[in-house]
Amino acid sequence: VCDHVKGYGLTPHVMHGPGRCVVGVLGHEGRLSEAGFTNFEGVIEVVRVYSPYVLSSRETHPADTVVSLGDGVKFGASEVVVIAGPCSVESLEQAIAVARTVKAAGATVLRGGLFKPRTSPFSFQGLGEAGYDLMDEVRRETGLKFVTEALDERSLELAEARADIDRIGARNMQNFALLKKVGRCKKPVLLKRGFSATLDELLMAADYILAGGNYNVVLCERGIRTFTDHSRNTLDLSAVPMLKQLSHLPVIVDPSHATGKRKLVQPMALAAVAAGADGVMLEVHCSPAEALSDGEQALLPQDFESLVPRMAAVAQAVGRTLHTASPLNSGL
Amino acid sequence: VCDHVKGYGLTPHVMHGPGRCVVGVLGHEGRLSEAGFTNFEGVIEVVRVYSPYVLSSRETHPADTVVSLGDGVKFGASEVVVIAGPCSVESLEQAIAVARTVKAAGATVLRGGLFKPRTSPFSFQGLGEAGYDLMDEVRRETGLKFVTEALDERSLELAEARADIDRIGARNMQNFALLKKVGRCKKPVLLKRGFSATLDELLMAADYILAGGNYNVVLCERGIRTFTDHSRNTLDLSAVPMLKQLSHLPVIVDPSHATGKRKLVQPMALAAVAAGADGVMLEVHCSPAEALSDGEQALLPQDFESLVPRMAAVAQAVGRTLHTASPLNSGL
Amino acid sequence: VCDHVKGYGLTPHVMHGPGRCVVGVLGHEGRLSEAGFTNFEGVIEVVRVYSPYVLSSRETHPADTVVSLGDGVKFGASEVVVIAGPCSVESLEQAIAVARTVKAAGATVLRGGLFKPRTSPFSFQGLGEAGYDLMDEVRRETGLKFVTEALDERSLELAEARADIDRIGARNMQNFALLKKVGRCKKPVLLKRGFSATLDELLMAADYILAGGNYNVVLCERGIRTFTDHSRNTLDLSAVPMLKQLSHLPVIVDPSHATGKRKLVQPMALAAVAAGADGVMLEVHCSPAEALSDGEQALLPQDFESLVPRMAAVAQAVGRTLHTASPLNSGL
Amino acid sequence: VCDHVKGYGLTPHVMHGPGRCVVGVLGHEGRLSEAGFTNFEGVIEVVRVYSPYVLSSRETHPADTVVSLGDGVKFGASEVVVIAGPCSVESLEQAIAVARTVKAAGATVLRGGLFKPRTSPFSFQGLGEAGYDLMDEVRRETGLKFVTEALDERSLELAEARADIDRIGARNMQNFALLKKVGRCKKPVLLKRGFSATLDELLMAADYILAGGNYNVVLCERGIRTFTDHSRNTLDLSAVPMLKQLSHLPVIVDPSHATGKRKLVQPMALAAVAAGADGVMLEVHCSPAEALSDGEQALLPQDFESLVPRMAAVAQAVGRTLHTASPLNSGL
Repeated sequence: VCDHVKGYGLTPHVMHGPGRCVVGVLGHEGRLSEAGFTNFEGVIEVVRVYSPYVLSSRETHPADTVVSLGDGVKFGASEVVVIAGPCSVESLEQAIAVARTVKAAGATVLRGGLFKPRTSPFSFQGLGEAGYDLMDEVRRETGLKFVTEALDERSLELAEARADIDRIGARNMQNFALLKKVGRCKKPVLLKRGFSATLDELLMAADYILAGGNYNVVLCERGIRTFTDHSRNTLDLSAVPMLKQLSHLPVIVDPSHATGKRKLVQPMALAAVAAGADGVMLEVHCSPAEALSDGEQALLPQDFESLVPRMAAVAQAVGRTLHTASPLNSGL
Repeated sequence: VCDHVKGYGLTPHVMHGPGRCVVGVLGHEGRLSEAGFTNFEGVIEVVRVYSPYVLSSRETHPADTVVSLGDGVKFGASEVVVIAGPCSVESLEQAIAVARTVKAAGATVLRGGLFKPRTSPFSFQGLGEAGYDLMDEVRRETGLKFVTEALDERSLELAEARADIDRIGARNMQNFALLKKVGRCKKPVLLKRGFSATLDELLMAADYILAGGNYNVVLCERGIRTFTDHSRNTLDLSAVPMLKQLSHLPVIVDPSHATGKRKLVQPMALAAVAAGADGVMLEVHCSPAEALSDGEQALLPQDFESLVPRMAAVAQAVGRTLHTASPLNSGL
Repeated sequence: VCDHVKGYGLTPHVMHGPGRCVVGVLGHEGRLSEAGFTNFEGVIEVVRVYSPYVLSSRETHPADTVVSLGDGVKFGASEVVVIAGPCSVESLEQAIAVARTVKAAGATVLRGGLFKPRTSPFSFQGLGEAGYDLMDEVRRETGLKFVTEALDERSLELAEARADIDRIGARNMQNFALLKKVGRCKKPVLLKRGFSATLDELLMAADYILAGGNYNVVLCERGIRTFTDHSRNTLDLSAVPMLKQLSHLPVIVDPSHATGKRKLVQPMALAAVAAGADGVMLEVHCSPAEALSDGEQALLPQDFESLVPRMAAVAQAVGRTLHTASPLNSGL
Repeated sequence: VCDHVKGYGLTPHVMHGPGRCVVGVLGHEGRLSEAGFTNFEGVIEVVRVYSPYVLSSRETHPADTVVSLGDGVKFGASEVVVIAGPCSVESLEQAIAVARTVKAAGATVLRGGLFKPRTSPFSFQGLGEAGYDLMDEVRRETGLKFVTEALDERSLELAEARADIDRIGARNMQNFALLKKVGRCKKPVLLKRGFSATLDELLMAADYILAGGNYNVVLCERGIRTFTDHSRNTLDLSAVPMLKQLSHLPVIVDPSHATGKRKLVQPMALAAVAAGADGVMLEVHCSPAEALSDGEQALLPQDFESLVPRMAAVAQAVGRTLHTASPLNSGL
């Protein structure tokens, strides 16, 4: 085993214990993962000690990264950003109505899907490119920043040209071909955690983007797949403080997709702020029962209006401020 | 199929659709689960619509249950209760020191294990019965209420006689023989969710206790087992609002056992309060590096002291109050 | 850190690498788990290298353990044992009918629950002690060995006195109070893996029994809880070869409880034999649609009769033999 | 609620029960998922009864689909196909050596990655297009069919032009943009189950390909992500009989990626055949300790040679035949 380690230009450290002998190996991970120690006679197990991500690691880059969308909208600074809007953009009327509502209530970024990744090919797939014309008008009128999802080369080019931040969805978190292209973009990127990704895997996915030269990455916890059946996914809020400890990148939370149930969204949004999230992304729809996707989890306008001041109060309780375009009508 | 349904004294409702025929059956669940419809020729699947728990359901009992320990310590009312103390009681000195610390900081209930369920038979198993003498002295001096775990008949009898609330641990959530005995106890019970239990299973376990006549049950979310590796378990905070919707029983959260890491405990305690928990249970140890169990997750006294006022602020931000024996030294 | 390690009587091994310093510590695990290294300033993570179980480990005891029930029924030898019978014993007629059927088809051990752990307190709980009288008659007539579940002190005493092998169910795998009592029994024990237990935890649970002096432990894989919804649990067949590598104890498989669906039981029984299981435990019911528990997964007599010769053929294909009381009517 | 149902052109079926009222709705799923019933006052839950996939369903297409690669290599017929080869193609020497070995032992399809999806951007990414020249030579010499992974548009075009079957990896199972492009290909497709995908999701992903006109889809179970830590993923073998019941598409198993450990691959390959798989895909490497990816799980040539006749024996035991280019040197 020691000779094999040396063959990789690394130094083995042998420790004899009662019953077992342990060989410590230090060096660059890339080489070690390829060495296949488990198959030596007498090797019982191989245990990895090092973190497998590099560029997104706080060890490499100790200071917090702040990702700015312009006009004072910043992720990773002391203020908590509120992103809100419909799951899918369905029409100009719908988009304008929601945008006005969420802006009045305090949001500064509008979410809205134009290209939708749907589990079934027979579900509504989004307005596509035509939707950008609608969104241009919505942004002109409201001044909100706009985040939308890129699924492939074409939708990424459009998002890069016409949105303020490109979103990579949970299902594409390990679409490495897409991540490489995103790394060559200039716009900030919202990278959602895959619903069965470990934090190491999320940070290695971020490494793909950072390695391309795009350092403006915001991570997003959106629920993981577990055995539970009371919520669509299990919102893993402990990922927020853990990611902020492991990485310098900002972290936001999407309680709408995580829970899939309107009644759970509000308490989880408050909990996300309490756990230290740099932002919260919420689905709001003026008429959820008629939404073409995910209506069950969308907040009604009045729910959202009552939620924002409570998020602001929780932010203050944990020493932060909620970022809003204008002073909130205090609901407290 | 219809004849079979009728054979159980139930009424089938037949609905013909395009391609399939659906038979709805309404009645008491106990009978239906035993009918084995899946094995009829032509039956594609059986879907359960009803909730399988009864006594703990809010449908059965719409008003909130409030569980009182006396001296104003109540779970399920507007105040949020803080339970704190060491994982295991190790000595009188340790117990007194922690108890004074957590009381001064604002806790009103002391936790402390006397009989410990340990994964390995070779780990420290707790002081056992002798520990109760220590705890009597601690309670005399501090006035704190005391919660400790019951593992079997003997430890349950002791907890019933000498503690203020009996705790049933996650590993015993489906120890039905023990649950039946707990149902015959008079003391309030803290029932921890098993780390792979659904909410239905937790509420059916509560039904075992309620069915015995003991209605003073407090539920506790303490993390579920998932694929993640950054925390010991995944704290499933959405269980808090969901349980409060499904059931009338109070719900508290144990972020210490859920996360297993001290640095994650504080943000998760704040998030639990924001999510609507009726109480938070925290491990505090004056010298965690020397703790005989679970030292990695125990808060230091100074951590706990700085956490309590922040929990109080979050409680206020969501319209509740933190219950404390005396006014907090405001840390805000 | 090094001083702290020395304080436990252990020897630290320091390895300096590029960017990190690793301290290896060798010694008895019991002490180390209590040391709480994670909380030292500058400690990034603590990685365990050693196996946490001792008595059930193949490192401690390299030779295979063979557990004998008498009359040539042995787990862990070259023959594969077939255990079959109903989930619950419901009546003498039912029990005799099933017992005759499974014996004729080739089983040598009868399973049948007398004390049933049921998720809801309102479900059928088993015949209890009265069932033993029925089973005495069944065994007298058929000569089959009998395995049944012990849930608590009373049912364990009965199983110890009147069954051939005591079964500890998945929900009690970490009921340490019960495991300690089982360790003082003389009868062989069938220990089912908890549905969210790792193999380390299963082997530590076995350690509880072995530590009490009872070395006749048979492990049983019965499915784990995952996100999947097409089977009740996910049968983790890779646990079979892994357990046989890690431990000297025999390993059997219960495909009936794992899958919960009759149509999946047969292929999984064959797969279990192919994977190297020392036995297969199957539910068989002469009238599953009327079973008082778990009818959906019980094989019909004719299913079982056609399955046994195929299991025998698979056993032969992987170099083993199916143990049967009498020569099979070859179905090949 | 009934009016809302009618608004979608569907017919509500009202059933009054003790305590609840159930409304059954029958019709096309696409419409229903968008209706958002959960948010009506008084609606407790919405339960889906229908299967959400269509084209891949056995209800739509009862007869087994047989996918042929030519030269008698067919998935879904009575013969079980063996696919073997290295994780990554590294050089002509390596590829030729492995190809000769696996062909001699009985494989008829060669696997080998040219474009590798790697979790870290700093790991070996495959030979890319240049590798096809090597593989042309390997195929010329051995006559083996060749399967390789497509990650994006370019690698898909290459696979379509120069491989015999295009593989869509687990991480791309819900890369819907890619699936749509695959639907327009003519070559057979091997679609791997995502490691946290339900069977419904896998079949909806298959629907994307079938909807494009490509009906030659082979499904592949390759392990799911669970809490277990003894194998890289948990091989969910019950998916094999379940998929064959739900769908008309062939199903194969990849025990190498599922377990990640060489010692578990052989028993799981045998178990896969016993469970009814239409093929088994295995990693074989002549020098695994030097493999540039996944060496820990690759079988040695001699392991593979001894495994094939045992797979053939198991296939025979369950009424099937192992497909081989030439008669096996009987190892039985």
